[in-house]
Amino acid sequence: MKKLALALMLFAQPMLAQEPAPSPNEIVDQAKPEEWKRIAAEDLLVMTLAPVAEGKPREVVIQLMPAPFSQGWVDNVRLLALSGYYDGLAVIRVQDNYVTQWGDPAEEEADAKPLPDGLKVMEEGEYTVAYAPDIMAYLLTPNGKRSTVQSVEPLPPMVGTPTKFSDAYAHAVAFAGGFPVAAIFEIAKDSVNGKPVRRPKSIWPVHCYGMVGVARGMSPNTGDGSSIYTVIGHAPRHLDRNIALVGRVIEGMEHLSSLPRGKGPLGFYAEEEMNKRTPILSVKLASELQQIPQPAFEYLSTESETFAKYAAARANRRDPFFIHPANGADICNIPVPVRRVPSE
Amino acid sequence: MKKLALALMLFAQPMLAQEPAPSPNEIVDQAKPEEWKRIAAEDLLVMTLAPVAEGKPREVVIQLMPAPFSQGWVDNVRLLALSGYYDGLAVIRVQDNYVTQWGDPAEEEADAKPLPDGLKVMEEGEYTVAYAPDIMAYLLTPNGKRSTVQSVEPLPPMVGTPTKFSDAYAHAVAFAGGFPVAAIFEIAKDSVNGKPVRRPKSIWPVHCYGMVGVARGMSPNTGDGSSIYTVIGHAPRHLDRNIALVGRVIEGMEHLSSLPRGKGPLGFYAEEEMNKRTPILSVKLASELQQIPQPAFEYLSTESETFAKYAAARANRRDPFFIHPANGADICNIPVPVRRVPSE
Repeated sequence: MKKLALALMLFAQPMLAQEPAPSPNEIVDQAKPEEWKRIAAEDLLVMTLAPVAEGKPREVVIQLMPAPFSQGWVDNVRLLALSGYYDGLAVIRVQDNYVTQWGDPAEEEADAKPLPDGLKVMEEGEYTVAYAPDIMAYLLTPNGKRSTVQSVEPLPPMVGTPTKFSDAYAHAVAFAGGFPVAAIFEIAKDSVNGKPVRRPKSIWPVHCYGMVGVARGMSPNTGDGSSIYTVIGHAPRHLDRNIALVGRVIEGMEHLSSLPRGKGPLGFYAEEEMNKRTPILSVKLASELQQIPQPAFEYLSTESETFAKYAAARANRRDPFFIHPANGADICNIPVPVRRVPSE
Repeated sequence: MKKLALALMLFAQPMLAQEPAPSPNEIVDQAKPEEWKRIAAEDLLVMTLAPVAEGKPREVVIQLMPAPFSQGWVDNVRLLALSGYYDGLAVIRVQDNYVTQWGDPAEEEADAKPLPDGLKVMEEGEYTVAYAPDIMAYLLTPNGKRSTVQSVEPLPPMVGTPTKFSDAYAHAVAFAGGFPVAAIFEIAKDSVNGKPVRRPKSIWPVHCYGMVGVARGMSPNTGDGSSIYTVIGHAPRHLDRNIALVGRVIEGMEHLSSLPRGKGPLGFYAEEEMNKRTPILSVKLASELQQIPQPAFEYLSTESETFAKYAAARANRRDPFFIHPANGADICNIPVPVRRVPSE
C-alpha cells in the first residue's frame, strides 16, 4: 500500500461501522452556490514571471485585501500595477521558511525606476483597525457554530476540554471578508447595565502562508508598495501589526515558494548569483487585462455555514487517516477555499 | 533605503534614547560554550541528493529524535540507513505548503527494493509518551523564566495580559531534549494533601517546519521508516499524534523545500513529470561516513538560561525593526538554534 504522509483517501475503512466523516475538502464540495463569493476583477493582480527553461509560463494570481484593512497600501499597489511600475522588476530575495520578495533590483542606484505620482504615505497606526460593529469578523468557535466578535464566549477551560482556536499572538482569531484576522479585547462598561464586558478593541490581518505584504525599511517607514513579499514558510506572526498586509496568493504560489533560496544576508541574492533572480514580465490588474475571458475566482464566504463546518472539520479531522482529532486548529491551518471559475 | 520584509539591521535608531534591545540571534551569540550540546554522530543522518545541473552537491543533514520519543521508528531509520536501503531512492512527492517525501519509486511494483530484516512494528500508542518526572520538558513561560512541566503555572488571563504561548493543539507547549513538544494535562489528586492538581498526562513531538516524519498508509499502519517526509510549509500540527516524527532537518533544508512541486494528487509527481524526481545518492549515519573530519553539530540546550531568554525575545521582538512586540509566540516560531562545529 502506498504510504502517504497525509492520505485524503476517500474509501471507507472496513473496521469502521459508521460512514467515515467527511474531510474538510468534501465539506467544501457540498457548499451551496450562493456561499461562494466572486472576487472583483479590480481585486485581482496577475503577475507573470519569465518562463522557466522549458518555456512554460509562470502566472501568479494575488487577491487584494478588502476594506477596512490596509486600504491605503492596497490603493498604492493598484496604482503601481496600473502605471506599469512592476513590469520588468525581479524577485530579489528568497529566504527559506520566511519570504519571497520582489522589487526593483536597482532600487538604490541612479537608474532606479521612477515611482508614479500619487502614492499615499501611510502611518503605522493603519496596520490595525479600531473595532467597529460593522466589521463582520466571525470568530472561530467549537462545534462549527458561528459567533461574531460582538457575542464572543469565554475560551474553554484549560483542562478537560482542550483549547480550540487559542492563539499566541492575540486574544482571538477570526475571519473577516474572506481573510484571517486577529483581535485584541478590552474591558468596557456595558452601555445598558454598566457591567464590565469584554469587547474587541483592534483587529488586524495576519501573516499566514501565502499572504502578501508591503516591504519597508526601518520604522516609521511603512513602505509604499514598490517592493512586495509573500510568506513561504511557517506563519511569521510576529510581523503582524508591524508591517502592512495587502492580500494573498490564490493561484501559482508554487512559482514563488520553489524558487532557489538566496545566499546573501536575509536571503537576498548575493552578487555572484544575480542570475537566479526571476524576472517579472508584468503585474496587471485582472480588470485591465486584454485577454478574453479574464481570469475569475470565487472564495467561500467566511460568513457561510459551510465555512464554519469546514473550519470545525479542520480542527477535528475525522476522515479515515486520522486517529487523534486535534480538537483545535491554528488559524493559518484553515486556508480560505478559493476556486477558479468561468469569467462572466 | 533598502526595504526589508524583516530587517535584522544592527545599527541603533537615532530616535531611540536607549540601546536597542538585542535580537534573538544576538542573544544566542552570547550563549556560554557549555550551553551548546554536541549532537552524537549516530543521531546525524547525511542525505546526499544528485547534483543540480551546474554540478554542485546537495547535502541535507537530519538530527534524529532523542529518547523517549519515537525510538522504535528512529531505530528503524538507523537500520535502513546502515543497510543502504535509502541509497538510490528518490524524492517522489513535493506538496506545496505541506511536505516533501522520499522513498522507493517502485514501492508497489515487482522490482521494489527489499527491506532489511529486523524492522520493528510500532503501535499507534507510541506516537505519544506518558508523562514521567524524568522528562525534562521546559515549558515556555513569560519573561524568560523557566518552568518545568511539574511546576507549570496557570495561563495568564485572556484580557489585560495577552496570551503568551497559547497553543490550539495542546494544553501546553514545551521543549524537551532540544525538540519542540506539546502536552495534555489531567486533573489528579495531590499525593500529599489530596487536593486536585493539574499534571501532565502525555507528551509528543510536534510538526514544525523542517521536522522529519515516517510516512504511513491508513491506520493502524504506523509506517516502517522506508518512506520519509519533511514539513515544507506552515506547521501541519493536525498530524501530531497521528504519525511518527523521527527528527528534523538541521542543514540543507533549502534542497528539499525549493524542489518543483508535483502535479499529481497530494503532490506526488505525475506520470508525465517523473523526470522531476530528485535521485537520492545516499543516506548515511555521520558515524559511518568515511570522510574525515566527519560533520559535527551542536544545538543550544533547551534547558539553558540563554534558550529561555532567546524564546522570550522571539515572543517580544524589541529589536529596532519592530514597533509592536507580540508578547507571545507559536512554538514553531522558536526554532532551536543549531550550528556546525569542527569535528572533535
